Amino acid sequence: VHVHGGGYVFGPGEAGTLEAIEMAGYGHFKVISVNYRMPPDFPFPAGLDDAIAVWKVAITMAKPENIGIVGSSAGGGLALAMVLRAKQEHLPMPGAIAAGTPWADLSKTGDTYFSNQMLDNILVSYDGALEASALLYANGRDLKDPLISPIYGDMHNFPPTILTTGTRDLFLSNTVRVHRKLRQCGVEAALHVYEGMSHAQFCIDPFAPESKEAFLEITNFFNVHLGK
Amino acid sequence: VHVHGGGYVFGPGEAGTLEAIEMAGYGHFKVISVNYRMPPDFPFPAGLDDAIAVWKVAITMAKPENIGIVGSSAGGGLALAMVLRAKQEHLPMPGAIAAGTPWADLSKTGDTYFSNQMLDNILVSYDGALEASALLYANGRDLKDPLISPIYGDMHNFPPTILTTGTRDLFLSNTVRVHRKLRQCGVEAALHVYEGMSHAQFCIDPFAPESKEAFLEITNFFNVHLGK
Repeated sequence: VHVHGGGYVFGPGEAGTLEAIEMAGYGHFKVISVNYRMPPDFPFPAGLDDAIAVWKVAITMAKPENIGIVGSSAGGGLALAMVLRAKQEHLPMPGAIAAGTPWADLSKTGDTYFSNQMLDNILVSYDGALEASALLYANGRDLKDPLISPIYGDMHNFPPTILTTGTRDLFLSNTVRVHRKLRQCGVEAALHVYEGMSHAQFCIDPFAPESKEAFLEITNFFNVHLGK
Repeated sequence: VHVHGGGYVFGPGEAGTLEAIEMAGYGHFKVISVNYRMPPDFPFPAGLDDAIAVWKVAITMAKPENIGIVGSSAGGGLALAMVLRAKQEHLPMPGAIAAGTPWADLSKTGDTYFSNQMLDNILVSYDGALEASALLYANGRDLKDPLISPIYGDMHNFPPTILTTGTRDLFLSNTVRVHRKLRQCGVEAALHVYEGMSHAQFCIDPFAPESKEAFLEITNFFNVHLGK
């Protein structure tokens, strides 16, 4: 099950399916990509509601432990929020998740929001579109609500998780904070940081060497953990 | 077996034993720390010769697969160079290695030499002491000699390796480049990046929460892989 990125405001319809295509192409998985509702018309929790609705159907089509959830950027955050929500609702867990450079903290908290500002040539800075997207999505709720910023959630009993980022990713801290929190909760979690890569570039250019490498790492991780 | 850091010029005698003490204290391992010769009197390959001499004795004291090699900064680079040298000499391999923020590339090559310059409050910049240390150690040899800069070595058949760094470590790129190269060579390799941490701070302050966490990760990794 794939949930697309785009700051919770971009990537509707086919525009959001690139990463799903990469997972299908590199990993030979059958992929369902969720075209979830987005702000301004449908702020939180509409997107999460839609993703969970798809999850409930997906687990009727295959064993949950044979299904992975994959997403990057806002999709990575949404993947983590789906697991938190599934825990709350006592739904079956996926067998593994792949959170690419997850937007785990929608507040401007984390080292590389500052240290990689103006170095990341995809996101550039929190101030501007990212902050506006966060506020649109949260729609007045606390940005540190764990279902909005899953870094603040309880990650015990999460499924094995693979995380992908780059040295100049504005979300490097988002990613490593999730990795550390998962490890502190005793979860099997693998971190991959690509040299010189800005935010989610492994999704954006399907044919870059790093993209192939990243998707092969994710594929290998899923092949090890799904259906165990 | 522990090889200390310090840019190949600092940390003789007891001054170089802190990380060895941390491994003994957190991990309950018996540790041999190598007081290898250093420039200016003894440039490359004297330090590596000494480290390999100790390795040859260590493997008479216990099974090589039950012994790990651990080191950070220059010690991390030296640990990797020891494995390359052991391969060349057809010596038995250690069961695992822990390379903390390894100085894998003594030339100024790598993203975070630039992006984390003036952000890392331990190393600060390549220009100055680091460059001078590199030149002293290499003593006229090519800085990209694989035994000096192990990122340029062949890492096939390396033992399982755990790597530790931080988001504002000047050697973040050194560390993730080693991780990627190991993975490309099919080696089991775990990467841990600590939020807001500059170079090797997990070694420098034994009682910081991140230090405890880092050494427990290394201990866990060694306990899983040594003697298998």
